[in-house]
Amino acid sequence: MQTPVAPAIITRYEAGSASSESDILVTEEPLEIRLGHGPAHDRKEIRLSVTMRTPGHDEELALGFLFTEGIIIDPSELLRVVQCEHVKPEERGNVVRAELHPKVDLDAAKWQRNFYTSSSCGVCGKSSIEAVQTACTRSIAPWGPVDSTVITALPDRMREAQTVFKHTGGIHAAALFDRSGKLLLLREDIGRHNAVDKVIGAALAARLPMATCQLLVSGRAGFELVQKCAVAGIPLMAAVGAPSSLAVQLATDNGLTLIGFLRGERFNVYGAPNPS
Amino acid sequence: MQTPVAPAIITRYEAGSASSESDILVTEEPLEIRLGHGPAHDRKEIRLSVTMRTPGHDEELALGFLFTEGIIIDPSELLRVVQCEHVKPEERGNVVRAELHPKVDLDAAKWQRNFYTSSSCGVCGKSSIEAVQTACTRSIAPWGPVDSTVITALPDRMREAQTVFKHTGGIHAAALFDRSGKLLLLREDIGRHNAVDKVIGAALAARLPMATCQLLVSGRAGFELVQKCAVAGIPLMAAVGAPSSLAVQLATDNGLTLIGFLRGERFNVYGAPNPS
Repeated sequence: MQTPVAPAIITRYEAGSASSESDILVTEEPLEIRLGHGPAHDRKEIRLSVTMRTPGHDEELALGFLFTEGIIIDPSELLRVVQCEHVKPEERGNVVRAELHPKVDLDAAKWQRNFYTSSSCGVCGKSSIEAVQTACTRSIAPWGPVDSTVITALPDRMREAQTVFKHTGGIHAAALFDRSGKLLLLREDIGRHNAVDKVIGAALAARLPMATCQLLVSGRAGFELVQKCAVAGIPLMAAVGAPSSLAVQLATDNGLTLIGFLRGERFNVYGAPNPS
Repeated sequence: MQTPVAPAIITRYEAGSASSESDILVTEEPLEIRLGHGPAHDRKEIRLSVTMRTPGHDEELALGFLFTEGIIIDPSELLRVVQCEHVKPEERGNVVRAELHPKVDLDAAKWQRNFYTSSSCGVCGKSSIEAVQTACTRSIAPWGPVDSTVITALPDRMREAQTVFKHTGGIHAAALFDRSGKLLLLREDIGRHNAVDKVIGAALAARLPMATCQLLVSGRAGFELVQKCAVAGIPLMAAVGAPSSLAVQLATDNGLTLIGFLRGERFNVYGAPNPS
């Protein structure tokens, strides 16, 4: 049974002192939506999309998604949404089958071109993490102790360097810093993942040593952002916002130090062993 | 030439009084990444992905994306990234071709299954908007004057009703209110688009009259969220954060009232004609 939140033990820093505490994370798990006519033993089935979501209200999510993406025009075209039982045990709860009215054409070619599938190949957190680990050709050299003076200085440095945010108040940023907290690269984009891809692309082009750098992102720390850091071999990622359950798990499994809620003198450390 | 920001005329509300002002929006436009070996007249070309991004540093974005998604293992496998010239005039600047080293296998079947393409079929803002308009089977009944007392009360009402956010501080929300500001539905999800799909799915299931409702989202107002409201026939969407250029254009073209930066006694109205 998937739940929308998950417990975690974190290291909370405040004004330089650290303490170990219990915390609660938002759950992030893939959901695959399959399409078919009639019941599941009908063999024709389209794997429409996989999206990272918080478990709960999955039937509504499927209905809303099919409707707002124009797969169905009227709710009556969706007969029902059922949890798929014939999946691997670890995928239970993460795969739904939307059974469409026979009049709705199953135009696989059109939809499969147009919809999102996560870069992770699996449909459970575990297989998503395994897929990332396959893609990680570099092992991460552990960051070691977190220097709270350095970490807490990063957000102001990033904000001062942001140009588009100053004008619009509406753009994400990602910034690469060296170990001492010196800003090396900053990129802004309306998409968080794009901002991170731009920074990593620029770092690759400039041959910067990402294995000894730290990355700060302006928003939350979801699975896909930690994935990008892991593949790039960046050992520390900090976020102004909250991390997800799957992001913390991926960071832990890869020895990546993950920092969340970095605001003022406060931040939390997830993932890597207590660095103090 | 694409620019990262775009000018706009907005209606700014503060403590109940409205004024028309110039403002600057973040640009949001699609970017298509194509893959090939060697120069563009080589016919083998894969349309890998379309993502909504802010123009600028597109070559770095392509490099970072290919690398972090595991298409290339080493930057040397990407020979160069070029702007595609043989595209429709309105798509210029939104289509790049990544030319891979001959040793990199162009495994179209694998990648096309795994990557994101926006639900909009075009590769420029205009065609993205046209695609949404084709999907909109309901016309939007204009909201009319904005009641600032009602609007400014919505964020607190949403926050009070959020359960997962209280525990985690890290989840997006979308909430449907009736015209008087009464909360009808609230859903939370780590993905903003999922939260909106869940609310719209729940509203469809409950046969709520979305044509007379207003939707509040906790984050920014990007194209895809406005698209979902437009398809569902919701005439007013409010966001705590900033809207994008393409979101404002889509709202304007569809007669949808778009509100951004809804914080305390202040908010901005974009899109629909000045409602006062």
